[in-house]
Amino acid sequence: MGPRLNFLFAPKSIAVVGASKDPQKLGYVLLNNLLKEGYQGELYPVNPGGGEILSKKVYKSLTELEGKVELVLISIPNKSVPGILEESASIGAKGAVILSSGFGEMPGEGIQLQGAINQICKRSKIRIVGPNCMGIYSRPSNLNATYFWEIPGKAGNISFISQSGAYGGILFSEIRKRGIGIANFISIGNQADLTHSDFIEHLLHDEYTKVIALFIEEIRDGARLMKVAKEAALYKPVVAFKVGRTPAGIRAALSHTGSMAGTIEVYKGAMKQAGVLLAQDSTHFFDLLTLFSAYPDLLPPRDGVGILTISGGPCVAASDACEEEGLSVPILSQSTRSRIRSLIPTFGADSNPVDMTPQMNPDNFVECVDLVCAEDSLGSIIAINVGLDRPSFADAFIKALQRYGKPVVSFVVDVPTISSRFSEAGIPTFQTPESAVRACAGLLARKEWLKRPKGTEVTYPSKPSKLIQRLLKKGITQLDEHTSKRVLKEYGIRGSREGIAKDYRQAAKIARRIGYPVVVKVFAPGVTHKSDKGGVILDVRSPTELAKAIKQIDSNFDIPHRYLIQQMIKGKLEVIVGGKRDETFGAIIMFGLGGIWTELIKDVSFRVCPITHADAYQMISDTKGYRFLCGYRGIPRIDQDGLVEIILKISHLLTSNPQLREVDLNPIKFRNGKAVTVDALLIL
Amino acid sequence: MGPRLNFLFAPKSIAVVGASKDPQKLGYVLLNNLLKEGYQGELYPVNPGGGEILSKKVYKSLTELEGKVELVLISIPNKSVPGILEESASIGAKGAVILSSGFGEMPGEGIQLQGAINQICKRSKIRIVGPNCMGIYSRPSNLNATYFWEIPGKAGNISFISQSGAYGGILFSEIRKRGIGIANFISIGNQADLTHSDFIEHLLHDEYTKVIALFIEEIRDGARLMKVAKEAALYKPVVAFKVGRTPAGIRAALSHTGSMAGTIEVYKGAMKQAGVLLAQDSTHFFDLLTLFSAYPDLLPPRDGVGILTISGGPCVAASDACEEEGLSVPILSQSTRSRIRSLIPTFGADSNPVDMTPQMNPDNFVECVDLVCAEDSLGSIIAINVGLDRPSFADAFIKALQRYGKPVVSFVVDVPTISSRFSEAGIPTFQTPESAVRACAGLLARKEWLKRPKGTEVTYPSKPSKLIQRLLKKGITQLDEHTSKRVLKEYGIRGSREGIAKDYRQAAKIARRIGYPVVVKVFAPGVTHKSDKGGVILDVRSPTELAKAIKQIDSNFDIPHRYLIQQMIKGKLEVIVGGKRDETFGAIIMFGLGGIWTELIKDVSFRVCPITHADAYQMISDTKGYRFLCGYRGIPRIDQDGLVEIILKISHLLTSNPQLREVDLNPIKFRNGKAVTVDALLIL
Repeated sequence: MGPRLNFLFAPKSIAVVGASKDPQKLGYVLLNNLLKEGYQGELYPVNPGGGEILSKKVYKSLTELEGKVELVLISIPNKSVPGILEESASIGAKGAVILSSGFGEMPGEGIQLQGAINQICKRSKIRIVGPNCMGIYSRPSNLNATYFWEIPGKAGNISFISQSGAYGGILFSEIRKRGIGIANFISIGNQADLTHSDFIEHLLHDEYTKVIALFIEEIRDGARLMKVAKEAALYKPVVAFKVGRTPAGIRAALSHTGSMAGTIEVYKGAMKQAGVLLAQDSTHFFDLLTLFSAYPDLLPPRDGVGILTISGGPCVAASDACEEEGLSVPILSQSTRSRIRSLIPTFGADSNPVDMTPQMNPDNFVECVDLVCAEDSLGSIIAINVGLDRPSFADAFIKALQRYGKPVVSFVVDVPTISSRFSEAGIPTFQTPESAVRACAGLLARKEWLKRPKGTEVTYPSKPSKLIQRLLKKGITQLDEHTSKRVLKEYGIRGSREGIAKDYRQAAKIARRIGYPVVVKVFAPGVTHKSDKGGVILDVRSPTELAKAIKQIDSNFDIPHRYLIQQMIKGKLEVIVGGKRDETFGAIIMFGLGGIWTELIKDVSFRVCPITHADAYQMISDTKGYRFLCGYRGIPRIDQDGLVEIILKISHLLTSNPQLREVDLNPIKFRNGKAVTVDALLIL
Repeated sequence: MGPRLNFLFAPKSIAVVGASKDPQKLGYVLLNNLLKEGYQGELYPVNPGGGEILSKKVYKSLTELEGKVELVLISIPNKSVPGILEESASIGAKGAVILSSGFGEMPGEGIQLQGAINQICKRSKIRIVGPNCMGIYSRPSNLNATYFWEIPGKAGNISFISQSGAYGGILFSEIRKRGIGIANFISIGNQADLTHSDFIEHLLHDEYTKVIALFIEEIRDGARLMKVAKEAALYKPVVAFKVGRTPAGIRAALSHTGSMAGTIEVYKGAMKQAGVLLAQDSTHFFDLLTLFSAYPDLLPPRDGVGILTISGGPCVAASDACEEEGLSVPILSQSTRSRIRSLIPTFGADSNPVDMTPQMNPDNFVECVDLVCAEDSLGSIIAINVGLDRPSFADAFIKALQRYGKPVVSFVVDVPTISSRFSEAGIPTFQTPESAVRACAGLLARKEWLKRPKGTEVTYPSKPSKLIQRLLKKGITQLDEHTSKRVLKEYGIRGSREGIAKDYRQAAKIARRIGYPVVVKVFAPGVTHKSDKGGVILDVRSPTELAKAIKQIDSNFDIPHRYLIQQMIKGKLEVIVGGKRDETFGAIIMFGLGGIWTELIKDVSFRVCPITHADAYQMISDTKGYRFLCGYRGIPRIDQDGLVEIILKISHLLTSNPQLREVDLNPIKFRNGKAVTVDALLIL
């Protein structure tokens, strides 16, 4: 069985509705593109005017083509689209690509028209690409069903699913510059029907596609995307560029596609979880495509990076970039170093980076590069050369690549012979030393994901909270701290020891039971930001201090209130675990280091529920503050397993209680390394 | 008076020592380059073999050229260089460019040879470029005294001072791709004599140079660089790329130039102080050069960025990048928006970004762009266009640039007509939307520096500390906390109230005087990391707790010790002020937020002493945690003036006491918003 969207990528027959005689019109461009690219199937221009266009007979109506058309391309004014789509379905077409604009991206009329399209789509079996898109291109079937009249002809293994038409143009310009090629390009426009996910699923099974690229403004079906992307990433590198990461970006995205872009932090976590590599910017995106196009299957066997150069400056820049990207540049073994020493000029460097200098005897390149590539600690190799165009330099790396199977990437300038040999041998070249390094980082990130401990998704049986059910019946949706902790207790999450007191006498009793020091908090419905208002008194050490604390709270709050007396947990370390319903991905879970700094540096990581043990561990280790959890300068090492457990339990809580909108354990502190939830908030 | 290094950039006569008949030899390349570029002065090849090379008479020795040579180019084996240099000086040459390698970058012999060169240099008046360099290129005087045989011919206004030869090659490749040009290129090699600073000073006065670019591995004369760069930056944009930022980079730099690269954080502060724009990576470096080459003098009158596009995706990417770079993309005024609304298609966007869409009536471009550029909140404009090659699009921006004088930068792809019109009109084009945005950020950074409150450098009269003098006599170099604070007091820096006690009785007396709660610290010579060893007990609230604290310290330390009883200052906020002697820049000063997070995210800023009031303020506001100092979620606003004062006083302390190696006020806490130094350490 071939992939299920073959009627889009390799249709047996195509009708072009809106084909035009006027070369200025897009309807002409579209038909001309199909002919020029050499599409081999049946091609039927459709235009009420009839006659001939580009020597092809023009049909006045789709109805004349009953049963003959597999795919309909629609390039007509928006108002006429629903009617034509209806006809397309009725003559038995399997798919339609709606290139016309004026739908979901256009308030009022456009949104209505997109609604009409959705209705037709639901009623019939026809599948739709677009509307408001640039079309489909497929190199293997000579199909250029797009408005782009200049797509680089080189065959390649990248397939690009783009929510932006313009990014298609940028991609074509970039791949031409970089000398790489694509297999398929799909502009998905407003995703009225087919989404990123549908195409990922198709491309996973497409033999010509080795690398899947995504340009994302908005994911419409987050949960499904997670599933198909995770499956695809097992077999093929999946690279994504997400825009609409910031308020200004979201405003821009909203205006032109009607997309509501999600929080970038959530996307980052979700994509990492699914094995999708998320590019930092346009250059990084195209760099990753260049890289994986060269090495779709080859992974570095080790983490260390070897740098071989004849040019000093760019090699220093590459070394800096390695360190800044978290890649190690290990010093070579003593035996390798002394053998290299005998091959390079005296003022060369043998440690890694290995600087062979422009004065290197060209006969020694092969042996020197071989020695470095053989080094056990190294998994990928960066070759740098500015202006010394010796063929043996190229050959050395090509041989080593073949012999050791360690990916080689390069930064070479003004060396035409080396460039062309590298290109023939499939060694990718990057525009800057930093790009070459970031490409290596991409290889390592993919390797890390593929080799991660698999773990199974946590499949606790759904266990709705009884307390939540009771509260819902009472119409309570915002749970106070104490009640929230009682729900958490149902799921086995330990809170600080505490009790509610009406007065000093009760408070003193509770404090005695818990043991001093204690924390005294105001307890009254609807009081938020207790700390800021003087409603939290920490480190109360004695009955005398307790009395004082209660007096102080009384003077700060003149509404009726009680007192929450709580075990005082010392130590600077605080973490947060939270969860909520994301409009893109559904139930998501968050981990972060606590305190004011977290907010400042956004030191949090997200995943989409359900999660595996491995995911939960990774959430913790993803944070910048992770090293504080491993024992650091007077902060004792904490029980990470216990923390992982809490994260998994919160995931369970979220999946078991669809009525739970938000949960926040903030802060969780540590007593003898064990996590204790000090404050919590649930919203139903 | 012309600049003082004219004998290098426009020499009246040149001798080429090591000129060779063999086209494979660099000595041939050098001579050939000079001839090919059309050098107009006298040219004397020198080679003991004599005869003719490239139709020029060859002199057997420099001594034949007594009084005739202004500049000597030396391209011979390292061992022969000192002799030739001696001869060059003796025949009256003003300068020598030593292109040969095998000096400071080569352990042993090379280092010795460089020493010999330095000696000659000191004895005679001859000035030296290199050794181990690629030479000098000057477009205005048709001088190609380098090994590069393919320098792009386009005249330009950038002059590039490069510590890396290879980065010259990269620069030439980049400027060719970007269609920009250079005025001068200097490869400074090992800087045996002339340094970055010398050339900056020269180029400041060079009429052809409008932009000064630096590739830095190591600054040899930090204090002087600060002075000349600050002066130059007042008149011309100065852009730098610093490599050797990380341990791996430093290792690479060390091996190939013998450079000891300094800490990047110090460089960042120093360059910001001097008004030098520091590039983040190679692409950013060349982007900044592209930008300033187009707009050496034009600064955005406002901070807001306007984005005008016909392409959705790249516009969203640009908007994201703006926000991530800290640039504002303000929404346009309502009146402008409604006028724009009437000019763009209904599904366009009028807020900013302004999306004119591909369906825009080309006749409306001029009016629409004019409206946006006229908007008062905007200071710079980004033009985006993928694939819609309408001349009126280009004309609209060109007109607006001329009318409003607000810099316009562009990201355009596949639009040859627009590209060429932009290029003619001097509107720079960038490779990605993100690059265009980062370029705008560069303009704003330069504007901010030029418009900063000037302030005068703090010129307190030097006031050596009497206590330091006494301690030095006693041979004490590491001052304990208490003594350190006494030195600080001499300079008017307030420490926490405290006293030293031999036993409980004295401690109780001091505590009573200070007032509870207090901090009890172990006090004994040579005890470091007191906290980690249980030598600090915080928040001691009563005589009973004091007795307990003393007992606890006694059990943790069995060496003879006393007790430091200190006022307890509450509040989470901690900051650090420090200073030390940097090998590159001399006395430097540091400010940072305190606590473990600072170390994690390196939230510190540096400046080179002496500093101005404005510098001190900027040091504070440079930190990520700055907003905590402005009143933030329960942290009261602190007295920033007081903090600035402390920074200035520490600068004074450092400049007044050359024997002071290091000073650390860590932490400084706040009592009613006023800074109090809680712990301090001075090292002499």
